[in-house]
Amino acid sequence: MTYRAEVFVTLKPVVNDPAGLTIKGGLHALGFDSVTDVRSGKYLVVTLDAADEGEARARVEAMTGQLLANAVIEDYRIELRSEVSSVQGGGS
Amino acid sequence: MTYRAEVFVTLKPVVNDPAGLTIKGGLHALGFDSVTDVRSGKYLVVTLDAADEGEARARVEAMTGQLLANAVIEDYRIELRSEVSSVQGGGS
Repeated sequence: MTYRAEVFVTLKPVVNDPAGLTIKGGLHALGFDSVTDVRSGKYLVVTLDAADEGEARARVEAMTGQLLANAVIEDYRIELRSEVSSVQGGGS
Repeated sequence: MTYRAEVFVTLKPVVNDPAGLTIKGGLHALGFDSVTDVRSGKYLVVTLDAADEGEARARVEAMTGQLLANAVIEDYRIELRSEVSSVQGGGS
């Protein structure tokens, strides 16, 4: 069975985020003054084969701990779904 | 009212993703052979003030089109919620 895992990696709230601050400055310069905060992170979509959802989740948790996220400064969240048809929402 | 918008920016499927390929190679080197694909993207959390949800969504759409995503090579998806309590799921 093929699974599609979305991994969201964000800096912990106490960690400085220079990229987010730069984006916030850019948005203010464009006139979006109502923006009070921007935090930047990584969004990874991992496609993998596994026997069941439990195995898939365990594997993605292991990958995230070992490679995808740095647990010292980053938090992460994993969302898993079985891949029947790969429908990806796209911006226009 | 304060809103929290999550913006997911991904490369269009037809665009090469060297970062994703590198991560896939790293996962294979660590023994995660069941991984068939990795796509990397950006995950931005924008906090903003707006009168209502429609205004907030329109602003975030405008920001994304002007600065956050490059429509030529990237797709995006926006998820909006009103910020009552900032609960952010974190990995352990």
